Amino acid sequence: MEKLFEKLAAHYEEMVEIRRYLHQHPELSFQEVETPKYIAEYHRKLGHEVRTEVGGRGIVAVLRGEKPGKTAALRADFDALPIQEATDVPYKSKVDGVMHACGHDGHTATLLVLAKVLSSMKSELEGSIVFIHQHAEELAPGGAIAMIEDGCLDGVDVIFGTHLWATDPYGTISYRAGHFMAAADRFEITVKGKGGHGAEPHLTKDAVVIGSQLVTNLQQVVSRRVNPLDSAVVTVASFEAKNAFNVIANSAVLTGTVRTFKEEVRDKVEAEIERIVKGTCLAGDADYHYDYKRGYPAVINHKEETNFLAEVAACIPGVENVPKREPMMGGEDFAYYLQHVKGTFFFTGAKHTDWEEAYPHHHPKFNIDERAMLLAAKTLGAAALTFLREKSYQYNEHKKAVD
Amino acid sequence: MEKLFEKLAAHYEEMVEIRRYLHQHPELSFQEVETPKYIAEYHRKLGHEVRTEVGGRGIVAVLRGEKPGKTAALRADFDALPIQEATDVPYKSKVDGVMHACGHDGHTATLLVLAKVLSSMKSELEGSIVFIHQHAEELAPGGAIAMIEDGCLDGVDVIFGTHLWATDPYGTISYRAGHFMAAADRFEITVKGKGGHGAEPHLTKDAVVIGSQLVTNLQQVVSRRVNPLDSAVVTVASFEAKNAFNVIANSAVLTGTVRTFKEEVRDKVEAEIERIVKGTCLAGDADYHYDYKRGYPAVINHKEETNFLAEVAACIPGVENVPKREPMMGGEDFAYYLQHVKGTFFFTGAKHTDWEEAYPHHHPKFNIDERAMLLAAKTLGAAALTFLREKSYQYNEHKKAVD
Amino acid sequence: MEKLFEKLAAHYEEMVEIRRYLHQHPELSFQEVETPKYIAEYHRKLGHEVRTEVGGRGIVAVLRGEKPGKTAALRADFDALPIQEATDVPYKSKVDGVMHACGHDGHTATLLVLAKVLSSMKSELEGSIVFIHQHAEELAPGGAIAMIEDGCLDGVDVIFGTHLWATDPYGTISYRAGHFMAAADRFEITVKGKGGHGAEPHLTKDAVVIGSQLVTNLQQVVSRRVNPLDSAVVTVASFEAKNAFNVIANSAVLTGTVRTFKEEVRDKVEAEIERIVKGTCLAGDADYHYDYKRGYPAVINHKEETNFLAEVAACIPGVENVPKREPMMGGEDFAYYLQHVKGTFFFTGAKHTDWEEAYPHHHPKFNIDERAMLLAAKTLGAAALTFLREKSYQYNEHKKAVD
Amino acid sequence: MEKLFEKLAAHYEEMVEIRRYLHQHPELSFQEVETPKYIAEYHRKLGHEVRTEVGGRGIVAVLRGEKPGKTAALRADFDALPIQEATDVPYKSKVDGVMHACGHDGHTATLLVLAKVLSSMKSELEGSIVFIHQHAEELAPGGAIAMIEDGCLDGVDVIFGTHLWATDPYGTISYRAGHFMAAADRFEITVKGKGGHGAEPHLTKDAVVIGSQLVTNLQQVVSRRVNPLDSAVVTVASFEAKNAFNVIANSAVLTGTVRTFKEEVRDKVEAEIERIVKGTCLAGDADYHYDYKRGYPAVINHKEETNFLAEVAACIPGVENVPKREPMMGGEDFAYYLQHVKGTFFFTGAKHTDWEEAYPHHHPKFNIDERAMLLAAKTLGAAALTFLREKSYQYNEHKKAVD
Repeated sequence: MEKLFEKLAAHYEEMVEIRRYLHQHPELSFQEVETPKYIAEYHRKLGHEVRTEVGGRGIVAVLRGEKPGKTAALRADFDALPIQEATDVPYKSKVDGVMHACGHDGHTATLLVLAKVLSSMKSELEGSIVFIHQHAEELAPGGAIAMIEDGCLDGVDVIFGTHLWATDPYGTISYRAGHFMAAADRFEITVKGKGGHGAEPHLTKDAVVIGSQLVTNLQQVVSRRVNPLDSAVVTVASFEAKNAFNVIANSAVLTGTVRTFKEEVRDKVEAEIERIVKGTCLAGDADYHYDYKRGYPAVINHKEETNFLAEVAACIPGVENVPKREPMMGGEDFAYYLQHVKGTFFFTGAKHTDWEEAYPHHHPKFNIDERAMLLAAKTLGAAALTFLREKSYQYNEHKKAVD
Repeated sequence: MEKLFEKLAAHYEEMVEIRRYLHQHPELSFQEVETPKYIAEYHRKLGHEVRTEVGGRGIVAVLRGEKPGKTAALRADFDALPIQEATDVPYKSKVDGVMHACGHDGHTATLLVLAKVLSSMKSELEGSIVFIHQHAEELAPGGAIAMIEDGCLDGVDVIFGTHLWATDPYGTISYRAGHFMAAADRFEITVKGKGGHGAEPHLTKDAVVIGSQLVTNLQQVVSRRVNPLDSAVVTVASFEAKNAFNVIANSAVLTGTVRTFKEEVRDKVEAEIERIVKGTCLAGDADYHYDYKRGYPAVINHKEETNFLAEVAACIPGVENVPKREPMMGGEDFAYYLQHVKGTFFFTGAKHTDWEEAYPHHHPKFNIDERAMLLAAKTLGAAALTFLREKSYQYNEHKKAVD
Repeated sequence: MEKLFEKLAAHYEEMVEIRRYLHQHPELSFQEVETPKYIAEYHRKLGHEVRTEVGGRGIVAVLRGEKPGKTAALRADFDALPIQEATDVPYKSKVDGVMHACGHDGHTATLLVLAKVLSSMKSELEGSIVFIHQHAEELAPGGAIAMIEDGCLDGVDVIFGTHLWATDPYGTISYRAGHFMAAADRFEITVKGKGGHGAEPHLTKDAVVIGSQLVTNLQQVVSRRVNPLDSAVVTVASFEAKNAFNVIANSAVLTGTVRTFKEEVRDKVEAEIERIVKGTCLAGDADYHYDYKRGYPAVINHKEETNFLAEVAACIPGVENVPKREPMMGGEDFAYYLQHVKGTFFFTGAKHTDWEEAYPHHHPKFNIDERAMLLAAKTLGAAALTFLREKSYQYNEHKKAVD
Repeated sequence: MEKLFEKLAAHYEEMVEIRRYLHQHPELSFQEVETPKYIAEYHRKLGHEVRTEVGGRGIVAVLRGEKPGKTAALRADFDALPIQEATDVPYKSKVDGVMHACGHDGHTATLLVLAKVLSSMKSELEGSIVFIHQHAEELAPGGAIAMIEDGCLDGVDVIFGTHLWATDPYGTISYRAGHFMAAADRFEITVKGKGGHGAEPHLTKDAVVIGSQLVTNLQQVVSRRVNPLDSAVVTVASFEAKNAFNVIANSAVLTGTVRTFKEEVRDKVEAEIERIVKGTCLAGDADYHYDYKRGYPAVINHKEETNFLAEVAACIPGVENVPKREPMMGGEDFAYYLQHVKGTFFFTGAKHTDWEEAYPHHHPKFNIDERAMLLAAKTLGAAALTFLREKSYQYNEHKKAVD
């Protein structure tokens, strides 16, 4: 493992270079063209088997070790966001209105350089490593689903992934077995009343009044209908019913989000919102349109693999703190990989020790401590190698016994 | 008319005696036994045609004038209330828990003595006078409906009635054409949820929450669904859901009243309440029982007869003020008579000039200025006589012409 | 009076011409330049005393009869609306986005031609007639207040005004003594919460939830706090809180209108809204801004002058129906004149007999039956002449007696 | 340990006898007289040091082993409930309206017989065992607080307690480190409005409407103000505002419960309820009284002692299943002991294998599988002995070293 760490450290400058190059050339979700080309080219040079356009715009590269064994996958996403960068860094985005404001440039640089280093250790490698470079993490339905359907997990025994996290201090690797990140859904309710003159309410079906009762009644979903031991959020974020001051609203549009960890809670919340919409609109003699769009499911880390990762992380030089994390209400489409193979998703702290407060993800001034990439690479690499060594040993022993 | 006024004045003592006797012997609505006997006997002694048990316990007596003409009806109610009298008067109720706390004793005394006086003027009387002594005004469905069905208005051309009103000063006769007293209905809503342990809301359908949303939503009936130019009241008077502090309510019972003047508003309010109950319970996944009981309809005084009465009242000695009254949200089953014949219902002020404030009707210390009976008798008597004189003259002329 | 009617009929074509000219050249409230010039010029040609820029942009012209007597004022407003005309008439508005969509062009044409005709009858005229051409009726604070302050009612004994009403059939003059048109106020409430991420409600003060409770709670103003015998409307017309689906609202803006007839009800509603805003925001730990802008007060027609007008109207050739009108919840700044002198405001039906349904006022396809102008002119003229004849006679008699 | 298990098994009959005797003679919380006498007598006969009236009605008995060592406490509660027993068992309660419907009779029988057996093993015992027999667990403030203040934990190193749990199957011992049972508080809110006639809302401050808005607004505490990752319940259990159907409510009384696990959540909920009460009553111009009574705090089991107990339980003959339990929203005053010394509280399944469904605790037909007492005794006994052996050894070693 020492060798891995040393080699990665030796390639830190390249990691930074790649990250900065990608940062200057961000591409939006489902519109990535140059980034996947860049990635594919990099792996090809290393001699890896490369599949392009996996599930759309994804890249899958495979490094086969010279010894037999299991297969570990490592995943990094590479899309950017529709945000106008407002930092002063010399490697600022060159694309107007598009920015790597979530660190996916760093994820990609981390994985590419890690691939190069692991490639150089091929002779000792027991089993294979699959590098999954995923497009479109920022925009539902995301790239993961299509890449999985297109076979990116075929033959994979375990998967690891990380998110560089700008508000956690550098030196921290945090983890959690089980429910880690929430399912994040979206709903839109249109109350279809009947407008009219502000002085003649009796001739109307006042959509502002009905919509307001709806918002009030919806509080009950969490307060009364979800098991208090479960977590759920129902937020009506937007209430749109703009009218002249003397015109009774014809319609009102309520948009919001639902966050849950368990599928049965998610199902219940979706159904209870509809029940309340239906009843409240009936009470107001109004029609409605209810649209509930499921986003990514909850990220549920596998217990054994998570504990394994935490143990590995604790031994990485430079990692000072490996705390168990509280669940987060935000979403990630890494969730889908974990529905198919065992594995875990963890956070790598990327807040620079000099910063008093970091800009949050998706902020126009977002940035990361680039050294975090090195810790991420070490952790992912060590996890993969350790897993392969242990499991491949068992596997080979078993195989021998059987033969 | 002078003669009428003088004779009535001469019999004032008898009026007081009768009223006090009745006050001591009050009988509840639909349980009147001695009072109707007393009334029938009084009329029989005057030689009037008397029908008993009209529509149940009502008495109808007819005085036929010696001259031909029209027929005027005068109505007085005679039931008492389930209230424990708390006054100090020497003629206090002798029946425990029953009291003439609304002045019906005075109404009856007024009408009996007026009958005696009019009887003595029979030779000059053109046409007939029907004395309607009604039972059960205080308790829906009231006595009026049944008495009408039993013929008490047959042949009647006009009807007059009054209420002694303890909070209006003595000397006042007040009137209003059109909508005078509101329709007074009653509703009861049972929210049938599903109870449970206070710590497990997700296993219940919380009837307190649903009932509360119902009360809140019901405010909309008046604020949004009734024409702002119409009057309506929807009051949830009672909210009953008593439970231990850690038990979620299985059911909640809401009881209340609706007051309206127009039948179409009444219909709308009844329907809108149900719509809101239905929708709100649906939103809460609860069942419900909705019971709407119509009380008396609105008292709608006929315009011509009301103006006529106001003119007559203005000429009564002792009457100092004849104001037009605002509509009242309270109810009266005199309403039914006015659905069949023309006429008017008015208020006779009965607050003693010495009293700073009068106890309101239905109060255990309720009382009247007995002199108001004399003014009521004069007004009713003058109205009947004047009506008969004018109308009977026209009638007779017309008859002659036809013959 | 025959002469007045004949002369008006003879000038009908001019009336139509003027109205169509003005229709093509509409000017917005408080921006009128050419219209007042046109009006002033017209009166000057008739030899009337003319004051311009009265209270801003108003014109006051005085016609002095050759006989002594009282002074009657007639008022017409002349501003247009910010509406893009969508009719096909050949005399369509020539100004983009501005339209006489409320008939004020007709009001002005009516009054100008009436002035010409009355001017020609000057020798018989007892007393004076003041023609009040008011700017800016459509936009609070309106032109009336300033014109009154600038003396337009000085020496005036009575005032009459009318509105051509497109949804009442031609041939109808409708009136109502007392409360005729409502006070129309405007409020704006800003709920100042604290925004945040849709998944973290506990770190926010959710302005959508607080605003919704506010709308719900405001229903109580009308349902519980205003006397059910009074009329009031509280409408929240607009609810603006537009946010991304996963962002909790920082603020919400509610805009609406209040309609009342009595000043004490108006005061109460204004205060009760504030009480509810204050309490609801306190419950939600939010700040607020509450702005209540009074619009025109209620139009309260004087009884005697209204009955007088109704009698006059009933005798106008061409007027077929003179119904008493229900109060209207809409507003008019004619209200202010009636606070200073006696008078009445009435409606002149302007729906063409050929139209199945008329476009309502303020509609881009609004139009009137131009013949209604003639009826309006006749009624206003007859009212003024009759008033002057009767009152001036009394006045002169009185003066003689005194001399 | 074998010896302990054998001896306990040999005394099973006595355990049943004691339990049935106590079952027939239940005593209410804070009114226990005979039960503590019975308990004290039993311990005295065993030669234990006995303190009576500890913290009121509690009994503390001490068994000193013949070898030096640490001190372990075992706790059983002994009060009954105000419930009329509805079972058919031959040992049914002899006290009208009082019943051991929560199994405290079994707790006491378990602990007494365990004391007898341990007493007989005194010669081998390293250290001491304190038997805490607690009165009044069912009624806040409970007996624990006072017993602790009165010294029942003095010198105690660890404490164990169990609840026989009728809805868990026989053979199960369940446990949970950390938050195990919720804090259970109680609140009462009186809305002080102003009553009046059902037809005159404008003269009142309608307590039913205000109370209903309150219930509706209170849903926000859980839905918006508590971190979705924390658990909290706010239940309005009772809404009392009983009035005649035509009388507007003068006041409304809302009673309910709050359940939380963390003290900071508990504090927040208490404060947020008050904020909402204050604001909602202000909006309704009403006064209020808010009373929040804290019940038992959350039972927070110590991690090490809980894992220790789980390991011990797994080795008890007859125990087939030792699951980790989800937190429970119910409360227990065992919470207080755990605030002073380390220890754990666990559940012993007591649902008979023959029962399809068990009656829940506090049900008039509640019963237990008496064999569960034996498992409870074995587990408590083994836990105490094992603890003393291990800890006392360390203790003694340490002492020797120091000496």
